[in-house]
Amino acid sequence: MSDIELKHPPLSDDAPPAEPSLDEDDRLKPEFVRAVLECVEDDDAEGARALVAPLHPADIADLFELAPADSRAALAAALADLLDGDVLAEMNDWVRDGLIDALEPHQVAEIAGELDTDDAVAIIEDMEEDDQRAVLRALAPDDRAAIEEALSYGEETAGRLMQRDLIAVPEHWSVGDVLDYLRSNEDLTTDFWEIFVVDPSHKPVGTVALSWILRTPRGIAIADVMAREQTLIPVDMDQEEVALRFQKYALISAAVTDQSGRLVGMITVDDVVHIIQEEAGEDILKLSGAGDGDINEPLRDSYSARVRWLVANLGTALVGSSIIAFFGAAIEHMVALAILMPIVASIGGNAGTQTMAVAVRALAMNQLTQSNTIRTIKREIMIAALNGLTIAVLIGIGAALVFQNHHLGFVIAAAMLINVIVAGLAGVLVPVLLERMDQDPAVASSVFVTMITDSMGFFAFLGLAVASGIVPSA
Amino acid sequence: MSDIELKHPPLSDDAPPAEPSLDEDDRLKPEFVRAVLECVEDDDAEGARALVAPLHPADIADLFELAPADSRAALAAALADLLDGDVLAEMNDWVRDGLIDALEPHQVAEIAGELDTDDAVAIIEDMEEDDQRAVLRALAPDDRAAIEEALSYGEETAGRLMQRDLIAVPEHWSVGDVLDYLRSNEDLTTDFWEIFVVDPSHKPVGTVALSWILRTPRGIAIADVMAREQTLIPVDMDQEEVALRFQKYALISAAVTDQSGRLVGMITVDDVVHIIQEEAGEDILKLSGAGDGDINEPLRDSYSARVRWLVANLGTALVGSSIIAFFGAAIEHMVALAILMPIVASIGGNAGTQTMAVAVRALAMNQLTQSNTIRTIKREIMIAALNGLTIAVLIGIGAALVFQNHHLGFVIAAAMLINVIVAGLAGVLVPVLLERMDQDPAVASSVFVTMITDSMGFFAFLGLAVASGIVPSA
Repeated sequence: MSDIELKHPPLSDDAPPAEPSLDEDDRLKPEFVRAVLECVEDDDAEGARALVAPLHPADIADLFELAPADSRAALAAALADLLDGDVLAEMNDWVRDGLIDALEPHQVAEIAGELDTDDAVAIIEDMEEDDQRAVLRALAPDDRAAIEEALSYGEETAGRLMQRDLIAVPEHWSVGDVLDYLRSNEDLTTDFWEIFVVDPSHKPVGTVALSWILRTPRGIAIADVMAREQTLIPVDMDQEEVALRFQKYALISAAVTDQSGRLVGMITVDDVVHIIQEEAGEDILKLSGAGDGDINEPLRDSYSARVRWLVANLGTALVGSSIIAFFGAAIEHMVALAILMPIVASIGGNAGTQTMAVAVRALAMNQLTQSNTIRTIKREIMIAALNGLTIAVLIGIGAALVFQNHHLGFVIAAAMLINVIVAGLAGVLVPVLLERMDQDPAVASSVFVTMITDSMGFFAFLGLAVASGIVPSA
Repeated sequence: MSDIELKHPPLSDDAPPAEPSLDEDDRLKPEFVRAVLECVEDDDAEGARALVAPLHPADIADLFELAPADSRAALAAALADLLDGDVLAEMNDWVRDGLIDALEPHQVAEIAGELDTDDAVAIIEDMEEDDQRAVLRALAPDDRAAIEEALSYGEETAGRLMQRDLIAVPEHWSVGDVLDYLRSNEDLTTDFWEIFVVDPSHKPVGTVALSWILRTPRGIAIADVMAREQTLIPVDMDQEEVALRFQKYALISAAVTDQSGRLVGMITVDDVVHIIQEEAGEDILKLSGAGDGDINEPLRDSYSARVRWLVANLGTALVGSSIIAFFGAAIEHMVALAILMPIVASIGGNAGTQTMAVAVRALAMNQLTQSNTIRTIKREIMIAALNGLTIAVLIGIGAALVFQNHHLGFVIAAAMLINVIVAGLAGVLVPVLLERMDQDPAVASSVFVTMITDSMGFFAFLGLAVASGIVPSA
């Protein structure tokens, strides 16, 4: 490690001016959003443009997301040329689709033409087939071919994500050859961080970070500065796997290869960062049954995703109710059972959810594999036993005192211990088994685990109460 | 968009050899892990090293995580020099801390000395104070100063995350000056993607991507190719904010500035990618009360984090039980109430969790701000009303048929509708209010929302049953 490269002594100076439209968390201030929308309402398009022009494309995209849905078309009309491809690329999918629907195909084509292939595909892939064809027809032949090829790969694959613009050079070139090539070809991309070295069959054989090229004399062969070990991305790889690979190997960019191993494109980390965030954040939404869980999603989509989940949970709740019904006579005889039984089920549910969240996360991060499954199950049972004991003692003593019935205290303590241990076991086993069956553990685990902890909670408590003879049997 | 830069016609060739130690998801195969551990057990260090040597440092780190905790010291001894700084930097925090504890300070210092400041800090920051001092003493003065400075910034801030090695050049230089500087200074870092341009007081005034330098003739002034708009990171910014900023503006690297606006370091996206993933994935663990939720965490830490949560939930469950107890007489009179009441509470809990997950996620992504809070609340109430109606009709008809009591059907339908709407409202209001009070909405929301949906479920159902006169009042 060396110190910062200082070329001149530091002198004092004023701090740079703050961005007045953003708060300290990089969010647009509500008063700024309101000011822009007021300009739009007052037909003061110039005023709106003056406010918005200094913003970064990502912030202009945010502005559209924060504006009410019925103001967005007017906002788009007022901002006109500020609404370019960069802004659309940064915009929430739902908000963008709404805006794109309002545009003519030739306008969409104009915007798509200025974008990288991956961003253009993101805009076009969700359009109606007719509109999509109209946009493709309006594109320049080069762009159309690139987008059509990208669309030929499956959704959410590396092929959709990759850029076809990249720099590939043959092994036998020198650093000087590369520099001359880059300087003399006007139409090469400028958006690259590594140069790919390919063999005569266009298969990647190595990669050179630009910093190495800058630090190496012209005469040195590129084969001598390139890194031969590189991470290749198959063109049909799922984007979640791509994101995990970028994260695991700390990649800035990576070559994408087709079935025969030839270089067909490149993915850069800035295209992957939002996928990493989406995929990592998705599990919380899946586990709670909230579907895509986007606040910009159309209402009927949110309703249909969520109600399906609630109906499934209604089914599991009925299982619990049937168990209660089976012990109806016991409850009639001792209403304390009805008062206490939800506690056993509820704490079991909480314990199960804890374990399940840990397991789902560990599976998603590739931390929980066949090599440590048994160990992890043992670990979770140990934790569950400790948790179960603690809660059992608390609720056992509490129930014995409140109901002046130590027998009831023992029953609820035993039921609680059993249910928390079962919850711990189910919380890790259910996601692991779902994963083994190639199901997404985040989606389905919760219904099963809740059903198990609810049923076991009611069954263990009411069953022990009857079996131990504090109430007559059902 | 242009096509790929083909320098020679593609020819067919064999596919590259597959990595036999990894499965298709980049996870180490269990049989590979077992083979290595068997070598270690048989004191065949050479065999173990031969197996592990071809692995990427990230995979060697995974190997340690997948090995049982009590085999890791022997594994480390067998692999010896393969266990370098890169491997430690990739390793899970808990696993690494365990290994570091087993090493002598001078060994830790040796490893820290070969790392970037940020990785060295990550290794040293969690050590006991005495050990930390011993390691710092054993470091070269340069490295020690850099690490001590980094440690002077708060935990999880940009200051801890940044590298001090960067390339900064004055505005008046030409592209040729920059190239000569880079080529003639052997000890400059090679790990950079952008060059920072600074004024005489060492404040950043612009940034140049390396691809621009490569594509620009030597005579051009650097001031003419640099981008003047750049995103600066204050040195005391929280790492979560840093990650959000990198994601929002699709940054590859960014300058870090101190209070007076001077350039003190740089953060690159590869240091941020794992934070983006961690932070996005954390919410699921926080919301379920699973603490850090790492399967490598020591058992007693997991126990203490989780049991605290269960005790808090025991408290909320008692609130629900008190409400049931209040209606004890009604339940004694009609045991169907005890059978049905958990369904109302449970579906309300599920509906609340859905809305809460959406709200927590939207808050974390800066999608839900003051500008659209009211709109989002209205949206969630609408969805809740639709969900509530659907479930109410289903359970109302079901209960009326099963218990041959249409009065009971109306009561449970009304209670269900009320509880799901309350759940929707609580699911968005609780996290928003916690955020306004500068609390982490992911941590505390769940306890409050569950308490509200449980209590309201029991109260609405049992209260309506009594109020409507199907059972005598309590």
